[in-house]
Amino acid sequence: MASRTAIRRANLGLVLRDLNTHGSRSQTQLAEDLKLPKATVSTLVSELIELDLVYQTDATRAGAVGRPRRTVELRGTAICGLGVEITVDNARVIALDLRDEVLLDREIVIDRPDPDTVLDAVAGLIGEALGSLAESDSQVLGITIAAPGQMDRDTGVLRFAAPLGWSDVRLVDGLVERLGGNVLPIRIDNDARLGAVAEYAVARTEGIHDLLYVTGGVGMGAGILVDGQILRGAMGFAGEIGHLPLGRPGLACPCGRSGCVEATVGVTAFLGAITERPHSLRDLDQLMTTLRSRADAGDPSVLAALGTVGQGLGVVVGMLIDVLSPRAVILGGYFSYFGDHLLTHVRGAVEARAIAGQAGGCEIKTSTFGFTGPARGAAHTALEAVFTDPVACMEHAGR
Amino acid sequence: MASRTAIRRANLGLVLRDLNTHGSRSQTQLAEDLKLPKATVSTLVSELIELDLVYQTDATRAGAVGRPRRTVELRGTAICGLGVEITVDNARVIALDLRDEVLLDREIVIDRPDPDTVLDAVAGLIGEALGSLAESDSQVLGITIAAPGQMDRDTGVLRFAAPLGWSDVRLVDGLVERLGGNVLPIRIDNDARLGAVAEYAVARTEGIHDLLYVTGGVGMGAGILVDGQILRGAMGFAGEIGHLPLGRPGLACPCGRSGCVEATVGVTAFLGAITERPHSLRDLDQLMTTLRSRADAGDPSVLAALGTVGQGLGVVVGMLIDVLSPRAVILGGYFSYFGDHLLTHVRGAVEARAIAGQAGGCEIKTSTFGFTGPARGAAHTALEAVFTDPVACMEHAGR
Repeated sequence: MASRTAIRRANLGLVLRDLNTHGSRSQTQLAEDLKLPKATVSTLVSELIELDLVYQTDATRAGAVGRPRRTVELRGTAICGLGVEITVDNARVIALDLRDEVLLDREIVIDRPDPDTVLDAVAGLIGEALGSLAESDSQVLGITIAAPGQMDRDTGVLRFAAPLGWSDVRLVDGLVERLGGNVLPIRIDNDARLGAVAEYAVARTEGIHDLLYVTGGVGMGAGILVDGQILRGAMGFAGEIGHLPLGRPGLACPCGRSGCVEATVGVTAFLGAITERPHSLRDLDQLMTTLRSRADAGDPSVLAALGTVGQGLGVVVGMLIDVLSPRAVILGGYFSYFGDHLLTHVRGAVEARAIAGQAGGCEIKTSTFGFTGPARGAAHTALEAVFTDPVACMEHAGR
Repeated sequence: MASRTAIRRANLGLVLRDLNTHGSRSQTQLAEDLKLPKATVSTLVSELIELDLVYQTDATRAGAVGRPRRTVELRGTAICGLGVEITVDNARVIALDLRDEVLLDREIVIDRPDPDTVLDAVAGLIGEALGSLAESDSQVLGITIAAPGQMDRDTGVLRFAAPLGWSDVRLVDGLVERLGGNVLPIRIDNDARLGAVAEYAVARTEGIHDLLYVTGGVGMGAGILVDGQILRGAMGFAGEIGHLPLGRPGLACPCGRSGCVEATVGVTAFLGAITERPHSLRDLDQLMTTLRSRADAGDPSVLAALGTVGQGLGVVVGMLIDVLSPRAVILGGYFSYFGDHLLTHVRGAVEARAIAGQAGGCEIKTSTFGFTGPARGAAHTALEAVFTDPVACMEHAGR
């Protein structure tokens, strides 16, 4: 049986979550949302004000009649979570505040993808970010690292990441050594799962709690949320969709198999199908923005490549809809740049292939986060503890 | 916050669950298992004795030294759950008691698969079963019906079942009308899901909480358990694996697509590949037993058909392992008759295809329940309420 203290602390977290999901609320609305007595809410709000996590607006008159109405608002910038994504040739850091607003977003190119070079660069990036955030007086609660592949979250070891060519890299220890022992808690998780977490921060406000996020990059993965929980599977590698067979036996995949999802719809396959493509793959954001413009202008080579990718992706998405029956499928990474140019083909293939009619009532759309999804999701995860127990969290943060 | 009464009732259920999972226990062991004070366990056991759900053995001396040791045991036959499975050409009823023992198992052949004929026959089967159980003084807590396809569990309507050729059949209302208004609660669920529930009753005793059950019949489906919970998906049709593409474009499926799982490894495809096969498909149990004997004797036609089915099934299972990362995959229905004749091919294909090595640490085996899995799982489900709140359950049962 939970103690009174634990229940009060959990309720504090629920008030924060409600404000995070719905924006500013009056105490009356909070009491209704949380099914708690108004007196209890009043006490909880006072405690959150003391923790410097919320404030109350001055009384304003909502209309000509009625009592003035004060609302409770999140004090956004007081605390934040830091998310870092490591990809094949770059690293990105994003800081999100309590209102999910971006306080900081930086990206660096990394030349040699050996673990030591990358860890040096990432530690530098984190150090700079922490410096900037300290200046802006925002308290960082934790750091989460997103990377492709399989990882042991308890030990902070990246077990295997094909796109990086890494195995058994002590990611967390390596960063702690470089940043100094007294640093914040650092965690790691899979990039696709964290991409799904970023989407869920939006989807939950629309009442969507079962979603599937598909990354589009050199490697591919899926982040699966079932009833708001990440599906990891017993062995921890759920969502490994990159090498599902797509029924194109002739198409060799670097993994040694053939006809794999990555070989068919990964970014390498997409770019390989485009004539007159830009040479540098370094700035994928700029590259995809350019290709999107060419698609808008009717470039037949780009449109044909999107048709092929969309068809293949639709088959995979259709399979996953049949297996998981999600409420929404969100296409991230490079897919997110092409909207209807891609979605028309994806939806067509899903309709033709999934056994459930009308895509099983599932919404299929592109992400609005481009390549920033996993770093955003990592920042959300780093901030998550405040919604569980704000008191413990702020004590730990030294407030 | 849960009330004291609710907590006590839930604890009563936990004691029953512990005895169901581990067999007979001393009160000391129960207290350890449930992390409850011994005095609390003593009170709970007394209350369960009063409800006639458990009894204590006479004191027995465990060894030469030490105090005599009494154990608490489930009074098995006092209550039971009734499970019914409806398939294309038969119906089966199974009653399971509190110790998961089969009190009754009957099967009937149904000639015309139109809903009225089937509901008449099923109501008759249930009526007879209730009569037999009343004679043996076992109190039936509820009835659960397993059927293929999509259903609305709230209204008891079978929305769509391709193998039966049914749509929008009021299964529960139809049975209530035939059995009389004063009958027990009747629920419906998908056959593959209930097959998974039957497997979980065994797997949970081995500490396995994430499993995938694949039915092998005319139609095919998967029951997915994640952390002991059935994965239904937002739209309720998770596990629809029968029409995933298997990469054999030439093979037409009755659904209108081609290369589907059902068309490749369903029972029709399997039997179609066997020469000199028995004509009647009525008694599938006897048919499969015969074919198993032929496989054991080295019949090349049966072995070749098992090779083809095992290869195709391995590709699907490998895909599902990559997506879900279960701890165990259990092959039910007709697959369950062929053990290693089939498993060797399945495991080989999984090894070749799944990206996670060694099948991702996932155990792949055949069910020990043959075609009875879904009816068993239905009976478990009908009995489930007693593990949640035995008091309410027994009050409702009129004890």
